[in-house]
This record gives sequence, C-alpha cells and structure tokens, in this order.
Amino acid sequence: MIDAEKFDEWYNEIVEKADLCDKRYPVKGMNIWRPYGWRMMRNVDALIREEMEKTGHDEVYFPLLIPESYFKKEEDHIKGFSQQVYWVTRAGDNELEERLLLRPTSETALYSIFSLWIRSHADLPLKTFQIVNTFRYETKMTKAFIRVREIHFFEAHTCHADFEDAEKQVREDLEIAERLFKKLAIPFMISRRPDWDKFAGAFYSMGLDVLMPSGKTLQIGSVHQYKQNFSIPFEIKYEGVDGKHYYCHQTTYGMSERILGAIVGIHGDEKGIKLPSSIAPIQVVIIPILFKGVEEKIMEKCRELEEKFRSMGLRCHLDERDKTPGNKFYDWELKGVPMRVEIGPRDMEKGVITIAMRDGLKKSIPEHEVSKVIRELEQYDARLYENAEKYLQENIKRVEKLEEINAPIVEVPWCGSEECGLDMEEKTEMKSLGVPYPEEECQGKCAVCGKEAKSWLRMARTY
Amino acid sequence: MIDAEKFDEWYNEIVEKADLCDKRYPVKGMNIWRPYGWRMMRNVDALIREEMEKTGHDEVYFPLLIPESYFKKEEDHIKGFSQQVYWVTRAGDNELEERLLLRPTSETALYSIFSLWIRSHADLPLKTFQIVNTFRYETKMTKAFIRVREIHFFEAHTCHADFEDAEKQVREDLEIAERLFKKLAIPFMISRRPDWDKFAGAFYSMGLDVLMPSGKTLQIGSVHQYKQNFSIPFEIKYEGVDGKHYYCHQTTYGMSERILGAIVGIHGDEKGIKLPSSIAPIQVVIIPILFKGVEEKIMEKCRELEEKFRSMGLRCHLDERDKTPGNKFYDWELKGVPMRVEIGPRDMEKGVITIAMRDGLKKSIPEHEVSKVIRELEQYDARLYENAEKYLQENIKRVEKLEEINAPIVEVPWCGSEECGLDMEEKTEMKSLGVPYPEEECQGKCAVCGKEAKSWLRMARTY
Repeated sequence: MIDAEKFDEWYNEIVEKADLCDKRYPVKGMNIWRPYGWRMMRNVDALIREEMEKTGHDEVYFPLLIPESYFKKEEDHIKGFSQQVYWVTRAGDNELEERLLLRPTSETALYSIFSLWIRSHADLPLKTFQIVNTFRYETKMTKAFIRVREIHFFEAHTCHADFEDAEKQVREDLEIAERLFKKLAIPFMISRRPDWDKFAGAFYSMGLDVLMPSGKTLQIGSVHQYKQNFSIPFEIKYEGVDGKHYYCHQTTYGMSERILGAIVGIHGDEKGIKLPSSIAPIQVVIIPILFKGVEEKIMEKCRELEEKFRSMGLRCHLDERDKTPGNKFYDWELKGVPMRVEIGPRDMEKGVITIAMRDGLKKSIPEHEVSKVIRELEQYDARLYENAEKYLQENIKRVEKLEEINAPIVEVPWCGSEECGLDMEEKTEMKSLGVPYPEEECQGKCAVCGKEAKSWLRMARTY
Repeated sequence: MIDAEKFDEWYNEIVEKADLCDKRYPVKGMNIWRPYGWRMMRNVDALIREEMEKTGHDEVYFPLLIPESYFKKEEDHIKGFSQQVYWVTRAGDNELEERLLLRPTSETALYSIFSLWIRSHADLPLKTFQIVNTFRYETKMTKAFIRVREIHFFEAHTCHADFEDAEKQVREDLEIAERLFKKLAIPFMISRRPDWDKFAGAFYSMGLDVLMPSGKTLQIGSVHQYKQNFSIPFEIKYEGVDGKHYYCHQTTYGMSERILGAIVGIHGDEKGIKLPSSIAPIQVVIIPILFKGVEEKIMEKCRELEEKFRSMGLRCHLDERDKTPGNKFYDWELKGVPMRVEIGPRDMEKGVITIAMRDGLKKSIPEHEVSKVIRELEQYDARLYENAEKYLQENIKRVEKLEEINAPIVEVPWCGSEECGLDMEEKTEMKSLGVPYPEEECQGKCAVCGKEAKSWLRMARTY
C-alpha cells in the first residue's frame, strides 16, 4: 500500500501512467476514458448489471436534458443541486423557450414518467436502473474518478406500495453492495448519514465508504429512502386493493466510477495498480522468455497456452512485443494484471509453467495442471480483499472523548443532536459519516454535551 | 410487410405498443428507452463491439461537452452543424467564460487529443470507436429511432499514415457493414454521396441505406474519408520512417439507433414487430397450454424445457402469467419474439413440442431432438433477410429518362455535374443517394443534359 503522505501525488500520476484516463481534455473535471480504463469500467458495469438482473431490476435509459420546471418540483432537491447544474439555454441560433439542464441525477426526469407507468398495486414494486452520465459543476478540486464534472453514474430507482416494502429494498441494496464489493475486493463501511448530510430530498441516506491510503474515506455508493418526498410533488400514485389511491414510497441507489478510484487507491503499490481478476481487462499475460535457437518452440508453447487459457474463459494476452522480459514485467505490473505466466527453455524442459501473481507470490505449476490457475486467481483476489479489510479494521477506533482521537476513522458516543454533531466536526476537523450500520448499542456519554449517548457517531476526514 | 400508405402511422404506434420506447418525455425529440427496447439496442451494440474487436479497434469514451473554440477549428464542419447545436452557457449561477456545446458528433472533441496520442508512424493506424449519445437540434419532424434529438450513436475514428491506408479502412468498414447487417437481417445499398450531400468536412462520404415499407429510404450508416481535412487544422502529425513529419489521413464510421428503426420497419406486419434472433431480448417464449388435472405435469415440462434452452445459450422466457394462451400469443407476436413453443397435454402424450415461428411457420419437433430449434432460428433469420432482400431488389430500377421513373429507388445516367444532379432532384422530387457502390459502368446519356454519362445516380425519397 502507498504511504499516506505520498498517496495523492501517486494517485494523480498512476491513473494516467496505467492508461486509465487522459486528463488533458480542455474542459476542467472532464477526462477521457482510455481503452484500458474503459474496459475496467465496463467490467464493473457488467457486474452491477448481473446483480440488478438477479434482483429483478429492469434497465431503462432516460434523456439527459431536464426541463427547468420539472427540476423545480421538489424543493430540497433544487436547493441541494442548483449550484451544480449546467444549463442549456440556446440551440442553433435560438434562445430556448424553457431552459434545459444536464441531469445532475435523474429523479426529476424519471418521476414525471413513473406517474404514467404506475396505475395500480399490480404495477408495484417498480424496480428500474440506468447507467448514464450525469453532470455536476463541482466547485471543489477535481480528481480523476473521485471528483469529476461528468460522472459515469449508476442509479437505481424503485417505487413501492408502502414504507416497509421500501425498507426491504434498502436492505436488498445493502446486500447487493456486500456481494458486489466482495467481488471487487473492496471492504467498506455502511453509515446512516446524519440529517444535515443526507441526499437532497431524502428521508434518510445510507453511505457506503472505503478508507483510502491517504487516511481519508471515499463514498463509493449511497442508498436513499425517499418515503413520499418525491411521489407527492410528482403525483406517483397507485390504486390499492381497496380501490383507494395512495402515493408510492421510493428508494434510490447510486454508484459511480469512484469504484475504480477505490480499486486503484486501495490496492496500489510502488509498482502500479493491482486489479482484482473480476474486472481486469487482462487476467493473465503470457511472457515468452526467448533464447537463441529455441524461439520457435517457446512461441509455439506460448500460443498453445494462450489458446488453453482462452478456452478456460480467461481474458488472456500473449505479449509478443519486441522488448526485454524485464520491460514487459514492468508494463504489466504497472497496469495491475493479476497473473503473469513466464515460459522459458528451462520451464519447458521441466514441463512446468512459472506464474507470478501481481501481489508477489511466485510458483511453478506442472503443465498438465494448468487449470489450477483459476484457483490461484481466486486466492489472489481473496488476499487483496483480506489485506484491505485488515487495513480498514485497524484504522477504525472507538473513543470516549474527542481528545483521544488516534485513528483515521473514529466512533464517538453521540447524543444525536445536530448541534453536538456539528460541534464535533468543527473540533476534530473531521466529517460525520453517520451512525454505523448495523447499529450497535452505545452506553457512553455524548463527547460534547455529556448527556446520555443515543448512538455512536462515525467520523473521518473525507474526499 | 406493412402497406406503404399505412406505414408511418403503424410505425409511430408500434414503437410504443411493443414497449420499445415512451414518447411522452417532456422534451421534443427525446424519448425514453423502455427496458425491452433498450435490451434490443444493447444487443445491437454488442454485435457492433464484436466486429470492432475483431478488426482491432479500441473503445474509448470522450467527454460530452466541447469548447466552442475547438468546435470552430474546421470551417465546413461548423457550417454543417452550427444550426443544430445545443449550447451550455451557464453553470450554477455563473455565466461560463467559454460556451460549451453538446457534441453533435465528436470529431472536434477527439482530434485535439489525437494530436497528443500520435507521435510516430509506429502509432499508426490508430483505430478507435465510442458508443455515446450525441445531440442535434433537428428542425425536421422527429420520429422515434429515425429522427431524434438525443441520438444513441456509434462512431469509429481512425488515423492513417497515407491516403491508401485510409482507403483500406473505408473498405474494411463496408465489409463490417456486410457482416453486421446480415446478422440483423437488413439488406442495404451502398452509395457514394454526391459532393453537395457529403458529411460536413469530409473528402467523400459513403451512405448505407435501406428501403422502408413507405417507399422511402433510410440512412442507417455512413463511412467518411476525411483525407487531411481535419488533421491539418487539428495538427495530427506523425514522424515518418524518414524522420519527416506528415499529417495523418482520417476516416470515420457512424451508425445509430436507426438500425432499430430499420428492423422495426422492414420486418413488421399487422401483428407487430418481427425480430431477428441475433438481437431479440427473448428468442424463445414457452407458453403452457394448461388443462385441468395436468397443470402440474405441464408446468414441470415447461420448466424442464426452459432449463434446456438456457443451457443451449438461448434467451428464453417461460410465460406463467394468468392469461389465456391466445392473449399470450398476441403479446409476444406484437413484441416480435422469433419462436414460440407451446406445451399442452397432447404434445406431452406424443412426446413432441410445437414450435411457431414469428413469420408463420409452425411444426412439431420430437422432444429428444429439441436441439434442432437452433437450426429453426437460423432458418427463420435467413427467411427474414431473403424477404427483405427481395423487396429491396424489386424496388430498384434503372431508367434512361426521368419520365420513366417507376420505382421507389431509381438509377439514372448522370454526367456527374452538380447542376444536373440538383436539377434531377428538383424534377423528380427525389434525393440523390449517390453513385452506387461497387460502381458499375454506365454507357447512357445524362438524363438532364444529354452528355455522355459518367456514372449512374441513385435516387429515392428519403427519411
């Protein structure tokens, strides 16, 4: 893992060096996805789609542009986003009659249509999602994948007959996160955000956060319970079994390319990035170790192996470039390829292949046992996860008093009042992530006012 | 096929009835992709990606917003698009220092970066593509998938060392079209567009057109040779083997959701749409024909069959809704599912399954030969293609004189002058698609001026 003080500089460089993105596009905060980075992102998207399909969500795609009048239907929502909105005011030579905004998120685009799609209880639950780009005019410093102005965005939107069914959806979303982030080797925390930091228009918000090597946490997902806050202004109603009309309860679930930012950050080292095999564009790279006289035989063996790996369903690449093996090792380590296979004359004599995992483990495997590489990749993924999990757990501490704070993430007894919460933020120069979920009893006294604590408040410095 | 005079009305209705899109979104020309239509589009995209990968193109993703100054670097390009551009002029409460436009196409976004990516002849050819949304403020009447203001767009961009290598790319693009549109059961024509109708900034443009049942043609793709028209203003240069610097030659290739519009239009009938199995979200639907007393046995057989089809790699759906079989037939015919499988007590007794193809063919298959359905689907796809091909060929006629025009698509002897070409357009109220490709000799006299013809000019009424 990269040292905390070096991290930000390392991160800013590695995203370009490893060919993930190009930051030279002439609009601030809008980067170019290079082929390698884009394949990673598309692999993440594929895993998300798999989870969504399993849980009965349908994929839709709504227009980018939202009329100003629709955007303004939910009051808190406007307040939260109005400073971040890009406005289309002209088309060709014409001033538009009504201004259009680039979606910062799609509630106000979807919900006027949901009110047409939903008629009766039989239409519920409505479970949809889309993967689209959203636009936010961020005023903070931009950072590749972490804070950008054009966001590669996943958003699920669901409608339910009642509050309890919406609550079930929130729980399902958190289970999806468990499965998904395990595959991506990202351990994370769940916190119920304090009221002053919930999503604009939400009843409550759950944040999913990871700890980056800098010691700051990064929100990589969020789940929101809207109750009827949007369904009332957008008139999303259904006819119940009793023939009466009710407003729906709604939830959303959001994720973005921050997932990539987390993978890059958490698993990186001095050699480059380190990818879990689930999203690596190349899972296995084969490097021929050529010696005079046996080149042809070695290349033949390499091609045979490439074929074999492909037939096993692995994303495999045979590096035939005119470079030294050492230079090739360097390139693929930089780009985080999970497994390197070296084939040289000595390996061939012995009937083995040499595998080198990106995290340092190296071993020989008898050629006839080549199918074992699948297991090696699984074990490598598990090691990535375990190491990151260990780092996270070591850096969460519970303290009774603010003066005792001694870790990047702390949990402090809290009376539940906004006043005390904001006071803690000011005194510690940390932000409240919220109440840890699942919630654990807290028997202490509020670290500010000394009254009976209602819960722990989890705090950290954040991106 | 739908009658010409009924076609437009039928088309406008069927795209919503078959759940492809929802046209009620409150911004003109911007429709909502419903789950079924979006799955079709994503299946088309997957086929395109497969072709691109096979031919060594890398997928990238560039930002949506283009600074005005970049857009204005190529003169013809601005002229062609400036009336169609959406302008972002504000963000939050701020007036932007430089206006940004929503890409109508991405040349001016990509090429400033290509000039950084390309250094030497070893970087060539550069073959990239992206699948993104583009925005055009169309003034003509909008029509779902055919003329929209937010376009689901495929665009390949390539850079080459010289004109001949770029020409090779144009030929490869046309071969890709042959393979792709065959899979989609869409016969098409290739025409080299006349100079007055080429892409804004191109050296020449090849149009790929299909004939719709209305008798009008629809452009479903285009390939452009840019020569150095963009590489000079954008300074895309490389160092040759001789150490000197040269401007690249460039090509582009564009397609869009018009492909779906073509599939819907060409194969549709009174019952609904008819999908080729390559993109059908559901390739096989199983309908239980239930009779009292044997319901459980029939459902069991249906589930067994569903499992079997899935294991064969087919996209299969078992329709368990509480509706009559007749109503289910109606629904899936409307949505164009290629194959319906019916399982009733009589089929079970005989040990057969009854299959009904969407184009009317019906037969029984012994249960132990169920793998034959793959072949049935292939034959169905081939029939779709052949019928459409027959319709296209019957409607192209060569005539010597304008008065003889007797078909939706005509080819007329032409001297090659713009004057005569435009005169033909005016007199026939048709548009020039261009010179048929591959080019065939034309020995006649120009249908306007009577001079020696240089080529045929293909004409049609167009969307």
